[in-house]
Amino acid sequence: MTERNTAVTDTDTIHKTLKVALLGAGNVGAQVARILRADADSLAARIGARLELSGIAVRNVDAPRDVDLPRELFTSDASTLVREADIVIELIGGIEPARTLILEAIEHGATVVTGNKALLAVDGPSLYEKADAAGVQLSYEAAVAGAIPILRPIRDSLAGDKITRVMGIVNGTTNYILDQMDTTGAQFADALAEATRLGYAEADPTADIEGHDAAAKGAILASLSFHTRFALEDVHCQGITDVTASDIAAAKDAGFVIKLLAIAEKLQSSNDDGSRTEGVSVRVHPTLLPREHPLAAVHGAFNAVFIEAESAGELMFYGQGAGGTPTASAILGDVVSAARRMVLGGPGRTETTTGVLPVLGIEAVTTQYYIGLDAADQPGVLAKISALFAENGVSIETMRQTVHRERAVCDGSGPAAAELRIITHRASEASLAATVRAINGLEIINSVTSVLRVEGV
Amino acid sequence: MTERNTAVTDTDTIHKTLKVALLGAGNVGAQVARILRADADSLAARIGARLELSGIAVRNVDAPRDVDLPRELFTSDASTLVREADIVIELIGGIEPARTLILEAIEHGATVVTGNKALLAVDGPSLYEKADAAGVQLSYEAAVAGAIPILRPIRDSLAGDKITRVMGIVNGTTNYILDQMDTTGAQFADALAEATRLGYAEADPTADIEGHDAAAKGAILASLSFHTRFALEDVHCQGITDVTASDIAAAKDAGFVIKLLAIAEKLQSSNDDGSRTEGVSVRVHPTLLPREHPLAAVHGAFNAVFIEAESAGELMFYGQGAGGTPTASAILGDVVSAARRMVLGGPGRTETTTGVLPVLGIEAVTTQYYIGLDAADQPGVLAKISALFAENGVSIETMRQTVHRERAVCDGSGPAAAELRIITHRASEASLAATVRAINGLEIINSVTSVLRVEGV
Repeated sequence: MTERNTAVTDTDTIHKTLKVALLGAGNVGAQVARILRADADSLAARIGARLELSGIAVRNVDAPRDVDLPRELFTSDASTLVREADIVIELIGGIEPARTLILEAIEHGATVVTGNKALLAVDGPSLYEKADAAGVQLSYEAAVAGAIPILRPIRDSLAGDKITRVMGIVNGTTNYILDQMDTTGAQFADALAEATRLGYAEADPTADIEGHDAAAKGAILASLSFHTRFALEDVHCQGITDVTASDIAAAKDAGFVIKLLAIAEKLQSSNDDGSRTEGVSVRVHPTLLPREHPLAAVHGAFNAVFIEAESAGELMFYGQGAGGTPTASAILGDVVSAARRMVLGGPGRTETTTGVLPVLGIEAVTTQYYIGLDAADQPGVLAKISALFAENGVSIETMRQTVHRERAVCDGSGPAAAELRIITHRASEASLAATVRAINGLEIINSVTSVLRVEGV
Repeated sequence: MTERNTAVTDTDTIHKTLKVALLGAGNVGAQVARILRADADSLAARIGARLELSGIAVRNVDAPRDVDLPRELFTSDASTLVREADIVIELIGGIEPARTLILEAIEHGATVVTGNKALLAVDGPSLYEKADAAGVQLSYEAAVAGAIPILRPIRDSLAGDKITRVMGIVNGTTNYILDQMDTTGAQFADALAEATRLGYAEADPTADIEGHDAAAKGAILASLSFHTRFALEDVHCQGITDVTASDIAAAKDAGFVIKLLAIAEKLQSSNDDGSRTEGVSVRVHPTLLPREHPLAAVHGAFNAVFIEAESAGELMFYGQGAGGTPTASAILGDVVSAARRMVLGGPGRTETTTGVLPVLGIEAVTTQYYIGLDAADQPGVLAKISALFAENGVSIETMRQTVHRERAVCDGSGPAAAELRIITHRASEASLAATVRAINGLEIINSVTSVLRVEGV
């Protein structure tokens, strides 16, 4: 053991107390309350002030709780609690009454910490402005990718760099489902049922599987990354319900994995007069990634955010995206940082909105595409399809053909069929859509089995 | 495009200027200077003040530079430059004159940003204290894992959590060498030569391959993670020069990859009187990791830091650990954050040292071990070896035997030999060392070919 002399904060000498109001005692709220009480001394030492949990606002004060907390902490009068607090932790979720209570907290000059991505995605810009105007702190690290510290690194650590692209696996439910499909070959419905059984998916999984949850987080990531405020309505969104076991198998066969990504990137769009507009595309869609891409190794319900910046190059942040205790870690990180600033003095204004980049629609985006086709096995098929791609200005990077002769033999379904898998060079949504329409019109095509975007090649 | 009305900072209205002194114009310094000049407007908008590069201190003002910078910015009088600066960026490296100049900056109340891990590892505790006492900021994100934002997330985002363990691939040179050995089967010397040829290793690679560079970063990571100040002398250090191609092959065969890890973890050590002491072990050594561990997927010269925290669970931060431009990103992140605090007001004190945990020596650490043995192929060998492990209190998890009969036939080297690969359960360094001594004493053992620690199982 080495002796060392270091200034240590003696918690007995800390007399300042900050009142903390907790709104909501669900999965995350209960863990936040537990840690605030159990770790009171070490938190006080890190802050230089004691955090006093002054109350927990819930709808029903008598509801049973997973965590043992004194009955007298609970109240159904959230409004009074908020007005007497130095720090308000909002974990009710949803739009109302969360929004009204956050606005009350801001009006009373209380610091606000929230994990409410739904509210921020809808109403974030207006809330940030009100907090700025009132000079109070509004922190929301827990709203994106649960326990992973991602918002603060983007805002502070990369403050001297220029982010060009962010790609995030920010929804654990869909990553679990896609990972199961990839590992076991399961169909979407079976993987979803398994996710529900294990508690990774909610009873109504719509917000997850349709990509709405990822879109809300994408809007927040884009806002911080590009110093411009984006809302949910700015995000082009496509979920994973149409991803089939055969899409996954074909992707695997070609060295890819399918992930639901929230992507925000800076782009130049072409205008009719030939000029170009710099803007940002924010979108959520199933995406083929090469298996060697760092995001491809994110399994189960884990989350990760991959960032490309001009100077830093490629960065990735990985961790648990949900769960009571991990999310509580992010909430408490915000609480401690905010409390330190209240004790030591510091800027309430933490957002910097320095530019107003326009939102570019999905029509401004060019990506590579993966297209699966079920075609007749006839001479000249490849030539006809290739010609259609060329006519529509989409160039082909790779084309693979697998002939299923057994089908003709086994089920009498007619002539042998060919499965075609095409990966294009970068193309616009419009060119690709025109190509697919034209292909669908060919008599030799039985069906277009899948059209998926490809990134990271 | 969506219309939006957002308050935007107009850089024409920014009249405040902060003088930035740059010490050193090497690989990183030149990029910092370039970005400070090229991105002056966008940096000003993010800060609310303009950063004026007031000068660049170098040994020889006439030396040729990679980046085109005005001749009049260069000076050999670092001391005068420091005394007139608001922010001092130290990129000279090494101990002196870097230390003296940083102390001068602190005395003059200037904010200091440095990437000097060697100095911080040796003298960090004293520098942090002097900065604290003077109320000035001392930031050093670039000192660990280059472009990866890791220190700020540990300090701020995880401020409400308790880190239990940190494992980092924090030296790109050794990761490149080990990755090459793993991929191509090359011997250490050949992989090192390749790394030198490609510029991943310096002419004198000692600090990298002996683990000293990783140890310096380990001390910094441990200090922030455990709110206690550790120096280089507290780190147990073993490099990669003894790792052989056959170690790598055997590890691969058993589903492992060998990485040089800097590990800091909280442990309980047993005292002679039966009581236990809580402390921290900080160590650098080649380590076997299961191939499915997130750190196993970190290839080439990339870095990554894997953190286990009580609430957050597992987190990983991945990116480029070196290089002029990536490291400049980390330096500028610190500069912008520090400058924002200077403009908006805020705490100069950013370290929190709340505990004084003792350093536990390597004798307090228990890990699993991988042991490779070259033994005679005789009946009873396994029984004798197993008995020796048991006598020394080390229990075996798996044992694999491969018999090399071809050796006896081909080179006439005597009786057939058996290669034994043993993975133990957790054992202390002392028990393991006693076991290895005992095994070396057995007549049936030709040699103990490798002893390596195993983590992440």
